[in-house]
Amino acid sequence: MHLLSLLCLLAFVHAPATPPSIRQVLDAQVAAWNRGDIPGYMAGYHEAADTEFVTARGIVRGWKTVLATYRKSYPTRAAMGTLSFSGVELNQLCPDAALVTLHFHLVRAEQPPLEGVSTLVVRRFGEGWRIISDHSTATPGA
Amino acid sequence: MHLLSLLCLLAFVHAPATPPSIRQVLDAQVAAWNRGDIPGYMAGYHEAADTEFVTARGIVRGWKTVLATYRKSYPTRAAMGTLSFSGVELNQLCPDAALVTLHFHLVRAEQPPLEGVSTLVVRRFGEGWRIISDHSTATPGA
Repeated sequence: MHLLSLLCLLAFVHAPATPPSIRQVLDAQVAAWNRGDIPGYMAGYHEAADTEFVTARGIVRGWKTVLATYRKSYPTRAAMGTLSFSGVELNQLCPDAALVTLHFHLVRAEQPPLEGVSTLVVRRFGEGWRIISDHSTATPGA
Repeated sequence: MHLLSLLCLLAFVHAPATPPSIRQVLDAQVAAWNRGDIPGYMAGYHEAADTEFVTARGIVRGWKTVLATYRKSYPTRAAMGTLSFSGVELNQLCPDAALVTLHFHLVRAEQPPLEGVSTLVVRRFGEGWRIISDHSTATPGA
């Protein structure tokens, strides 16, 4: 084998798997939600005490706190309904941080649909892209 | 004059003015608002067509559009009331981008006070730190 071929082969063998893109992290969240997997959904968020969630109820900080809130608010698969995102816009702020703006849609059997806008700040960590800040607002009249 | 003194003087003369910090940009916005200066308030935002404002009414993009909306919504000094920010938290994402979370308070003579949370993404441009994304939610019950 030529040296060059060997080097190419070694480079190929040692290439790390392409880490999931921001979009893939969001898609994995939606897929997890829609199979009733709240911890899977929460895997898109940075598992830290300062991860921030803002809604009309104010600011909540902490991955564990939010996981507990989701589990309480969505106790059954039916309560979770079907989630989708649309109009996802990505604004790369620097190599390791980005702003994401999207519309969320939650369709549930026994409650009116929930629609709104989320602005997310995502950062790249050793484990990949994770959401560090989620500000979500329902836009009933929009 | 000693050479060292001369060099120090030259260094002083040539030192660029320290650019305003993110906090100073926010403080200047509050000061402008409270003297009835909407364009001065808007100077804290990046003057661009993709600057983004999210509220319960949905997404609005464009500095000029938002300036026009503010002028219409706050036609008089009395309508503008008195603005203040509290609990300002700064999360530097990289040298030229940061996430800001704050509580806003607007006290007006003829209307109930408006309270809520804003998450801002700010970037450093040639002209200084400017807000590129503002997601603000009223938190009536929080």
